[in-house]
Amino acid sequence: MVGGGLGAFIGDVHRMASRLDGEIELVCGAFSSSPEKSKKSGEALYLPADRCYGSYQEMFAAEQKLPEGERMDFVSIVTPNHLHFEPAKMALQSGFHVVCDKPVTFSLEEAEELQKIYDDNSLIFALTHNYTGYPMVRQAKSMVRSGALGKIRRVVVEYPQGWLATRLEESGQKQASWRTDPSKSGKAGCMGDIGTHAENLAEYITGLKITHLCADLNIFVPGRRLDDDGAILLKMEDGAKGILFASQIAVGEENNLRIRVYGEKCGIDWSQMAPNNLVVREIDGPMKVLRTGVGELSTAAQAATRLPAGHPEGFIEAFANIYKNFSKAVKAQAAGVSSSDMDHDFPTIEDGVRGMRFIDAVIESAESDAKWTAF
Amino acid sequence: MVGGGLGAFIGDVHRMASRLDGEIELVCGAFSSSPEKSKKSGEALYLPADRCYGSYQEMFAAEQKLPEGERMDFVSIVTPNHLHFEPAKMALQSGFHVVCDKPVTFSLEEAEELQKIYDDNSLIFALTHNYTGYPMVRQAKSMVRSGALGKIRRVVVEYPQGWLATRLEESGQKQASWRTDPSKSGKAGCMGDIGTHAENLAEYITGLKITHLCADLNIFVPGRRLDDDGAILLKMEDGAKGILFASQIAVGEENNLRIRVYGEKCGIDWSQMAPNNLVVREIDGPMKVLRTGVGELSTAAQAATRLPAGHPEGFIEAFANIYKNFSKAVKAQAAGVSSSDMDHDFPTIEDGVRGMRFIDAVIESAESDAKWTAF
Amino acid sequence: MVGGGLGAFIGDVHRMASRLDGEIELVCGAFSSSPEKSKKSGEALYLPADRCYGSYQEMFAAEQKLPEGERMDFVSIVTPNHLHFEPAKMALQSGFHVVCDKPVTFSLEEAEELQKIYDDNSLIFALTHNYTGYPMVRQAKSMVRSGALGKIRRVVVEYPQGWLATRLEESGQKQASWRTDPSKSGKAGCMGDIGTHAENLAEYITGLKITHLCADLNIFVPGRRLDDDGAILLKMEDGAKGILFASQIAVGEENNLRIRVYGEKCGIDWSQMAPNNLVVREIDGPMKVLRTGVGELSTAAQAATRLPAGHPEGFIEAFANIYKNFSKAVKAQAAGVSSSDMDHDFPTIEDGVRGMRFIDAVIESAESDAKWTAF
Amino acid sequence: MVGGGLGAFIGDVHRMASRLDGEIELVCGAFSSSPEKSKKSGEALYLPADRCYGSYQEMFAAEQKLPEGERMDFVSIVTPNHLHFEPAKMALQSGFHVVCDKPVTFSLEEAEELQKIYDDNSLIFALTHNYTGYPMVRQAKSMVRSGALGKIRRVVVEYPQGWLATRLEESGQKQASWRTDPSKSGKAGCMGDIGTHAENLAEYITGLKITHLCADLNIFVPGRRLDDDGAILLKMEDGAKGILFASQIAVGEENNLRIRVYGEKCGIDWSQMAPNNLVVREIDGPMKVLRTGVGELSTAAQAATRLPAGHPEGFIEAFANIYKNFSKAVKAQAAGVSSSDMDHDFPTIEDGVRGMRFIDAVIESAESDAKWTAF
Repeated sequence: MVGGGLGAFIGDVHRMASRLDGEIELVCGAFSSSPEKSKKSGEALYLPADRCYGSYQEMFAAEQKLPEGERMDFVSIVTPNHLHFEPAKMALQSGFHVVCDKPVTFSLEEAEELQKIYDDNSLIFALTHNYTGYPMVRQAKSMVRSGALGKIRRVVVEYPQGWLATRLEESGQKQASWRTDPSKSGKAGCMGDIGTHAENLAEYITGLKITHLCADLNIFVPGRRLDDDGAILLKMEDGAKGILFASQIAVGEENNLRIRVYGEKCGIDWSQMAPNNLVVREIDGPMKVLRTGVGELSTAAQAATRLPAGHPEGFIEAFANIYKNFSKAVKAQAAGVSSSDMDHDFPTIEDGVRGMRFIDAVIESAESDAKWTAF
Repeated sequence: MVGGGLGAFIGDVHRMASRLDGEIELVCGAFSSSPEKSKKSGEALYLPADRCYGSYQEMFAAEQKLPEGERMDFVSIVTPNHLHFEPAKMALQSGFHVVCDKPVTFSLEEAEELQKIYDDNSLIFALTHNYTGYPMVRQAKSMVRSGALGKIRRVVVEYPQGWLATRLEESGQKQASWRTDPSKSGKAGCMGDIGTHAENLAEYITGLKITHLCADLNIFVPGRRLDDDGAILLKMEDGAKGILFASQIAVGEENNLRIRVYGEKCGIDWSQMAPNNLVVREIDGPMKVLRTGVGELSTAAQAATRLPAGHPEGFIEAFANIYKNFSKAVKAQAAGVSSSDMDHDFPTIEDGVRGMRFIDAVIESAESDAKWTAF
Repeated sequence: MVGGGLGAFIGDVHRMASRLDGEIELVCGAFSSSPEKSKKSGEALYLPADRCYGSYQEMFAAEQKLPEGERMDFVSIVTPNHLHFEPAKMALQSGFHVVCDKPVTFSLEEAEELQKIYDDNSLIFALTHNYTGYPMVRQAKSMVRSGALGKIRRVVVEYPQGWLATRLEESGQKQASWRTDPSKSGKAGCMGDIGTHAENLAEYITGLKITHLCADLNIFVPGRRLDDDGAILLKMEDGAKGILFASQIAVGEENNLRIRVYGEKCGIDWSQMAPNNLVVREIDGPMKVLRTGVGELSTAAQAATRLPAGHPEGFIEAFANIYKNFSKAVKAQAAGVSSSDMDHDFPTIEDGVRGMRFIDAVIESAESDAKWTAF
Repeated sequence: MVGGGLGAFIGDVHRMASRLDGEIELVCGAFSSSPEKSKKSGEALYLPADRCYGSYQEMFAAEQKLPEGERMDFVSIVTPNHLHFEPAKMALQSGFHVVCDKPVTFSLEEAEELQKIYDDNSLIFALTHNYTGYPMVRQAKSMVRSGALGKIRRVVVEYPQGWLATRLEESGQKQASWRTDPSKSGKAGCMGDIGTHAENLAEYITGLKITHLCADLNIFVPGRRLDDDGAILLKMEDGAKGILFASQIAVGEENNLRIRVYGEKCGIDWSQMAPNNLVVREIDGPMKVLRTGVGELSTAAQAATRLPAGHPEGFIEAFANIYKNFSKAVKAQAAGVSSSDMDHDFPTIEDGVRGMRFIDAVIESAESDAKWTAF
C-alpha cells in the first residue's frame, strides 16, 4: 500500500475492503511520506518492521528482490490525486499489479502516459470507482443490457454532498485541504472528486458514452479556488440525454449519489443512501422495489452479494467487490488464464483516462460560451 | 365556469376545490363549445337550465344583466390553453373576476394584452399554479423569507411524469391530444404544461427570479410535434444557480414535482408525492421532517392547513387554497378593503405573463447555440 | 347536522367531506346545545336563520313539517359519544336517514336499542369509520376477497397517536376533555376512540371476525381515568391470529394507523400516513407498491378515486367516500331501488354495534386473569 | 472455529466480521463433524493442513499444547443450537475464550451449567446478539440512559421474516431443516431463532427487564413441529409495557427487526432494514432522523462507526462490532487490565442464560390459560 497512514480515511477503507473476503493480505506498505510515520502506521497494522518502508521507491525495490510467493502481488495507491501517477507508473514498471484510487492521476497527460505504460505490460489495473460494486448497480446494468428498459432516453445522475458548505479547509481538516487545493486535486474540485463517480456510474449502467456536454461550474464558498458545485447537461450515444449534478455545498447531504435511467419501457432508480433497493417503474404497472438477495436477480448482482436477503450490505462490501474481482483477475492471470476468459468487471485504466478527459471537457465547457462541448 | 364539461379532468378539480370550504357555489356555466353538451353538463351539476349557457359570450351577457347578488361573482376558465384568452378578456371587460388555468394564454402576446386589460380594471385574477397551495410549500417559502436558509446557492426543481412515454395522443385520449398539438397547447409541450409549474414553484419559494437559462428540449416519442422532455440550467438573482428538469416520458413517474433549495445554512426538500413532509437538512444536525399540522410552523403554512396533524391533506386541498385566498380577496374588495391590506397569496396575471415569457425564453434557448439566454 | 358548531374539528370534517362531490348540501342544523351558539354557527355557514335550530328536537320537528323536497334528507350526528344515541334514535323515529360519528353510542345497550329501531325502519344508517374510504384500503379488501393472499394467517393492526402523552385534558383542550371523561366517552378511552377504528379496519379488510381477545390496557398518564394505551392479542375466524395495538401516548405519532395482513401467498401493508400506497410482498418476488390511480386496481378502489395517478388523495377524500356511498344509497332508495341492488359499501349500524361489543369485550378481558375472552 | 464449513451461512458471517478490522486472524478450525470436510474447508480458507482438525476435541487438545502466542486465543462456535454446549464447555475448561452463536445452548439446563463453568474461570464469553452492534442501536441505548426519553412507557419490538412461509424444510434447505427440528433447535422454533434477538434488543436498549409475559405461539405451516410465529404481551420493569412479535411466515419480509420505544418525552424508532437511521419523535417537534456518522451522537455510537457520514454501514459491520469489543476485552485481559475497567459492550453468557429462560417462559405461557406468566 502507498499512502493510507494512521488516521487516513480512504486507506482504512481499502484495508477493510481488501480484508473482507479473506483473499488478500496486507504484507507491506509505504504509508506516509514521513518514514517514521510510515513505520508507526505499519506497526499498528501488525506488519513486520522490515516491510514498513520509508518510501514507495524503496518498497518497490525491496519487494522486487523478494522471491515470488513472498513478495507483494499488487500495490494499492491511496494517496491524494497529485501523488497517484509516480507510484502507479513505478509499480507497473516494476511488475506489480495496481489498485488505484480515483481520479487516476492529477492530469489527463499523466493518465495517458500511464495508459501507455499499462498497454506495454500485461499487468492488471483497477480503479476504485467503488459505487459500481453495489449489487443493485450491477442489477441495473444487467437490466439495461438485457433490454428491460428498451432504448434509453433520459438519464439523471446526481451526487450532492454538503460537507464543504463552509470553508472547512481553513480548519486544517486534511480531506478538505487537499481536495480544495489545485496543486493537489487537479483542475477540478467537486467535479474531479465526485463528478467523475457520477460520470462513471452513468456510463457503467447505461453502456452509453457521453458525447457532448454543457457545464456550469460554481465556486459558492468565498475564497475557495476550485469548483464546489456544478450542473452539466449531457448528450449521450444513441440519442439519450442526461443531467449530471454534483455538489459539495448541498447542505446536509451525505453521499447522496443517485441515478435514474428512463428507457422506452421502464425506468430504474438507485440511490447510494439506500443501496440495497433498486426501484423499477414500468408503464402502468405497480412500482417494484428489487432488493439485494431477493428473488431472481442477474448473475452479476448475485455474484456481488455476500449474504441472504435481509442483511443490509453497505459501502465496504461494495468496495470489497472491486477488490474481489481484481483479485480474481490477478489469480487467473497467475494461473495462466487468458484475460478474455476472465470475469473482469471492475473499473480499469480506461475508466481512469476517460475520467480525466471528462474533467478536461467539463472545465473547457464551463469556460465556453458555446452550449455544447464535444467529449 | 367556462369549459369543464362532463368527463373533463381539470373541470372536476376546479369544482371540488372551489366547493371544499363552503365559500363558493357554482351558479352557472358554459361547459362546452357544444351548447347541448353544456346544458347536459350543467344539469348533471344540478344547475337550473337557464344558467347552463351555450357559449361564454352568452353567459357573460346574460349574467351581467342579473342583479348584483344574483349574478355570478367570478368565472373559472378551465379550457385548453388556446381557449383561455378570449373568455378571460371578455370576463374582465364584463366586470367579472377570473380564475384561470395555467398557462395563462396560448402566447406571450395574448398574455401581455390580457395584463393590459387587467391593469385597466380593478378586478381580481388568480392563476391556478396550484402547487403553491400546499402547506409545506408555504412553509418552505416562509423559511426562505425568514432567513433560515441563509443566502440561497443551489436550486434543483424537477417534474417528471411518465404518462406520455408512448404516443397516447394517437389513442384519442383527450388530455394527451390537445397537449401535444401545437395549435392548442402553444409553442411548448412539456415545458408549457409542467415546466411552468416548476418555474413558478422555484421562484415562489426562493423569491429569486430566473435571469438566464440554458435549455435542452427533446422530442423522444417519434412523430410527436412538441417537446416531451427537457432540462434547463438556470441563473437566478443573487448568484443562485438552478436546474429545472421536466419530462413527460419518464416512465412510471406520476406527478413527481420536487424542489430542493440549498442555502448557506440549511437545505430544504419538498416533493408533491409526499406533500405533507418538508425535509430540512442543517449543517451537521440531524435531518428534520416538518409535517403539515405538527409543531411550530409559519402562519402561512397554518393558514393553508384544514386539519390537525395526522390527517393527510392532498391535491384537492392544495388547489382549494388557491380558491380560498382568491375568494378572500374578492370578498375583501367587495367589502371595500384596499388591495394592499389583503392576504393576497395566490398566483396572479403577473405569474401568468412570466410563465409565457419563460416558455418563449426556453424555446429561444433550445434553438440557440449560445449557452445562456436572458430571461 | 347535530353538533359541529364553530371551532369543532369533526363537524368541519363532515361538512367538507359531504360538500366535496357536489351531491350533498347542508340545509339546516342544531350545531350546539346553546341555541345562540347554534344560530351563530349556522349563520357562519350561510344558512337561513329559520333553519338554524336551537336543539335537535326542534330541528326534527320543524323539518318533518316541511314539504318533501324541501326538508332535509338525512342528518349527520357529530356530537361527543354520549350525545349520539338520543338524536340518532329520534332521527330514525322521525324518518330521517342518519350519518353518525363513531363509536355509535355511549354504551352497548344504547347501540342494541338503536339497532332495533333501525331494524324496524327502512332507513339508511352510515357510521363514519372513515378509514375504510381510502382507495387503497378498498384495494386491500378486494385482494383478500379475490384470493390473492390465500388463507390469512397473521394480522397486525396498530394505531399509535401521541397527542395525549401529557395531561392535555387539564389545559381545557376540548377534544381531550371529553375523550378522557368516562361520563362522555364511555367505558373506554383510547380503545373506544381509535381502537375501534383498528378493529373495524381489520375485519373490513380481512372479512374475518375476531372471535377471542386478550387485552392489556394501560393508563400511563397519572390522574387520567380511562385507558390511554393498550395491546390486544386476537383470535380471528379461520385460524387467523392478530395483534391490535392502539395508543394515545406514543409520543410524536400522528395518526399512524397501519395494517399488515400476511396470507399464505402474499402480504399487504397499508398505512394512513402514506395512504395512497399499498405495499404488496409476495414469496420471493420484488416488493410492489400499488398506488392510487396507477395500473389495474379493483373496481372498488377505482370507484373511491377522484383523480388520475399522481394527485395525492387525503383524509377528506376518504371521508367523502363514506358520504358518497351513503348518498348513493339514499338516492337509490328514493328511486325505489331495492337495498340488495345497491352499492352499499359503507359502515352501518351493525359495525356500530360490533364496535360497542368490542369495547365491552376489551374491558372484560383487561380485567380478567384468563388469557382469552370470547368476543 | 467450530462449525462453519464450506457453504455455511453463519460461518462465513463470523469470518468476515472477525476479519474486518484486522485485529483477528483465523488460525485453525474444526469446521465439520466430517474430518474430511473439515480439512477441505480449512484449505479453502488458506489454513495449514495441520490446523484443520477433525473434531473440536482434537482441536482443543492440540492447540493447548502449542506455545502461547502460537496457539489460538479464542474459539468461535457457529454450529446449530444443539451443538453449542459441548464445545463451549470444553473451550472454557481448556482455557480458551469463546464467541458463541445464539441461542447459547439447546436448553436452559445446559445454559446454566455453562454459566457455572464460566463463573469458575476468568475467561471472556461473547454471544452474537449481533443487532446490538449497530451504531444507531447503541445511540438508542445511550439516549435512554441519558434520560432523553424520560420514563419509558411502551415498547414495540417485532421481527417478521417470511422465508419459512412454505415448508422449506422439506426441500432439504439446510438452514430450514435444523431450525424446524426440535432435536436440533430446542423447544422453540421462531421464538428461539429470532424471538430471542427481539427480547435481547428490547432489554438492551431500554435497560428494563421483562418481568411477565403472555404468549400466543402458532404453527401455521401444516406439518411443522415448532412455532413459526408468535405474539407476546410484555410487562417490563418500572411499569413499562411491551409487545413482542416474531414470525417466520410473514410472507415477503426479510429481516424486518424493528423496535419502537415511547417514553414520556420522546419516542425512538429503529429498523434493521434501514439500520443507519434512528427516527426520533418529540412532543410537538418535527420528526428527526439521526444518522450514523452525522452530527453529535453518543460515544458508544461513534465507537461503533467505521466511516464518515454517507457511507452505509451494514450487517457485517454491526456483527464485527461484537468481535471488536470482544477482542478488546481479550487483549485487555492479556494486558492485565481488570475487567471492570474494560469497555465491555457485547452480549455475554448472562444474556445467553436469559435468552434460554425467555424461551422457557414463552413456552410455559403459550401452554397456559393464565394471562400472565412470570419471567
